Amino acid sequence: MVSSTAQANRKYPDMLDLKPVLGAIDAVLGSAARPVELHEPRFGQRERELVLDCIDSNWVSSAGKYVTRFEEMVAAATGARHAVAIVNGTAALHAALVLEGVEQGDEVLLPAITFVATANAVSHAGAIPHFVDSTWDTLGLDPQALEAHLDAVAERRNGAWVNKQTGRRLRAVVPVHIFGHPVDMAALGAVAAKYELVIVEDATESLGSTLGGKGCGTFGHSAVLSFNGNKIVTTGGGGMIVTDDEAHARHARHFTSTAKRAHAWAFDHDEVAYNYRLPNINAALGCGQMERLPAMVDAKRRLAERYLLAFSDFPWARIYREPEGSQSNYWLNTLVLEREYAAERDRLLAALHGHGIRARPLWTPMHLLPMYRDCPRSQLPVAEDMHTRCINLPSSPFLAESANKV
Amino acid sequence: MVSSTAQANRKYPDMLDLKPVLGAIDAVLGSAARPVELHEPRFGQRERELVLDCIDSNWVSSAGKYVTRFEEMVAAATGARHAVAIVNGTAALHAALVLEGVEQGDEVLLPAITFVATANAVSHAGAIPHFVDSTWDTLGLDPQALEAHLDAVAERRNGAWVNKQTGRRLRAVVPVHIFGHPVDMAALGAVAAKYELVIVEDATESLGSTLGGKGCGTFGHSAVLSFNGNKIVTTGGGGMIVTDDEAHARHARHFTSTAKRAHAWAFDHDEVAYNYRLPNINAALGCGQMERLPAMVDAKRRLAERYLLAFSDFPWARIYREPEGSQSNYWLNTLVLEREYAAERDRLLAALHGHGIRARPLWTPMHLLPMYRDCPRSQLPVAEDMHTRCINLPSSPFLAESANKV
Repeated sequence: MVSSTAQANRKYPDMLDLKPVLGAIDAVLGSAARPVELHEPRFGQRERELVLDCIDSNWVSSAGKYVTRFEEMVAAATGARHAVAIVNGTAALHAALVLEGVEQGDEVLLPAITFVATANAVSHAGAIPHFVDSTWDTLGLDPQALEAHLDAVAERRNGAWVNKQTGRRLRAVVPVHIFGHPVDMAALGAVAAKYELVIVEDATESLGSTLGGKGCGTFGHSAVLSFNGNKIVTTGGGGMIVTDDEAHARHARHFTSTAKRAHAWAFDHDEVAYNYRLPNINAALGCGQMERLPAMVDAKRRLAERYLLAFSDFPWARIYREPEGSQSNYWLNTLVLEREYAAERDRLLAALHGHGIRARPLWTPMHLLPMYRDCPRSQLPVAEDMHTRCINLPSSPFLAESANKV
Repeated sequence: MVSSTAQANRKYPDMLDLKPVLGAIDAVLGSAARPVELHEPRFGQRERELVLDCIDSNWVSSAGKYVTRFEEMVAAATGARHAVAIVNGTAALHAALVLEGVEQGDEVLLPAITFVATANAVSHAGAIPHFVDSTWDTLGLDPQALEAHLDAVAERRNGAWVNKQTGRRLRAVVPVHIFGHPVDMAALGAVAAKYELVIVEDATESLGSTLGGKGCGTFGHSAVLSFNGNKIVTTGGGGMIVTDDEAHARHARHFTSTAKRAHAWAFDHDEVAYNYRLPNINAALGCGQMERLPAMVDAKRRLAERYLLAFSDFPWARIYREPEGSQSNYWLNTLVLEREYAAERDRLLAALHGHGIRARPLWTPMHLLPMYRDCPRSQLPVAEDMHTRCINLPSSPFLAESANKV
């Protein structure tokens, strides 16, 4: 938060002086080699050991022992009862939506501010993304804005809630815990209950984050995680569906492994299904990484503290702080420019890249992408505002060690 | 082929004596440890080295140097100009169909005898599988039966060929080189040209097979390969789209990596797209495997020769031999029972499993699976016959070494 003293003294020069920003970030990153990427994994002896053991076992494909172990480790880390390892986060969300009953022609509500994979997974399920606004309270979907929007557009027809502007069924809502910061799930739960929406949590960015002491990924009926190369834990590419519902987990496993019926030799399959399971070799890498999850969350939180401190006296920009009541994994640290300086964002990004700092803006909001331009949406003033003035800063856990001691 | 002497002498006992079959297979498998799986990979020092190098580079996710190298190796091995590494064979076929213009509600022709993934990929593209018959000449799709069927059901409407029974557009045909044996692509090409069908080759089982000296995967406009754990070359899970068309390859790359437009920092995407690229760590494993592809094809062909020899005097069963003019990778060796003994197939399978030999029947034909029961299809007498009397035998390349010298 910008301190009141700083606010009182601010002068709003026409062009920002970029030097102090670069200086503050340099102070945080310390001795880290340039260029500094946005988020990079690091692997230790343990990852090497487990991957070699997997190769030596000649079992590198799906359904190996590391898949089971990785699922158990991720379930334990989130607090979910069951976990089903999937080939990546997009595939996990696609499968999760279908498994929750999303059908061709349904609408699925999601924030306009998210990585494109969230909207793509909705499309892959044959459904139509319906974009809603975000809140500065969490950077994620705004439950109050969602409710106000549904109050205006939803209507009950033949026992289902439909969008009265399109006539399509409103089936699910996908909250995304942006950059690891948990959405207000209690408030969202109330709106979802009112409009009978299934909640599928997109926890792809928030492994290790908690809200009221409860792990992200345990608030909806099911949730998805990602272990892409840029995530806090990586398997190269990988994802997970987590749920407390045993029958649901069993179906998820079946549906993502060609729906083959168990038999010593016969190849019978009982539904149109997917080849979406995670290979054993990727799971082996993930098992090694999961052993260090608590240390990585800790390192990322220390790095966030350094950024927060470095920018605490800036009058025209601040580092985004985790929502009240939550512990964020601070997947990506976010610099928020004051609204008056939104037009300076790209000049700052260019300067950062020129300085060897691979910062990036927020994703372009979904409703501004050509293929999602005509999708239904609410008013999106916060999403558009957020997009113009947020910048993600390098956030790899190991940077906490290279950082100068403050 | 069954010799004419044997045919003249055959007596058709009511129940087969299974002992000689087990004996013949035992003679081929020699000292291999029981149970003997249908197909298992083996990894050497090279695979270990490359995977560790990949881990040590901290670049395990998509778009790494091993992905590019793996693509180049696979392109060179098949003779295709371009190769795009995909997360698995099913995803590769799904993407390939969409990239070739298959749309929601189209029909795609494919053999009823194939692994379920072929039909699933058609469904994933929103199209309807349309099953056609196979031929004993290749075990694959029968171009003559296809032509006769299309002559009966296809009709030209508004400049497109449609199935006059359903009114749906006939868009593509997917020949599958079953167990590595090439389909008669010249004959198929003529039928496809007549009915303006795009050919997407399913070469998931036939890496290293050639037809008239040309690699499987280079006959259609594009083709797909698989590197699943049971394939001749494995990446854990993996697939590939190959094509000679540079613009097509470029689009395939874009479409399978979220359609992100190149930019130093901005996240803009220009079509609904997929996260389907192969992670670098899987590609590293594949690079190690590809170095040994010629040796593995050679070993598998030697193993096939042993099976052929071991069953050369059997009056009521034979080992399937590669089609004339082709060099098969003999992905899976196939024992074909004479028609009179089709009813004995499951008794033989049970005996083989009891004996530690993990044989299996052909996949259940697609039109007999519940989810594909109502799909359009031709008469399928050969497919149904084939299913009742083919058994796949253990075919891992290393078995060529453990086999008794004959």
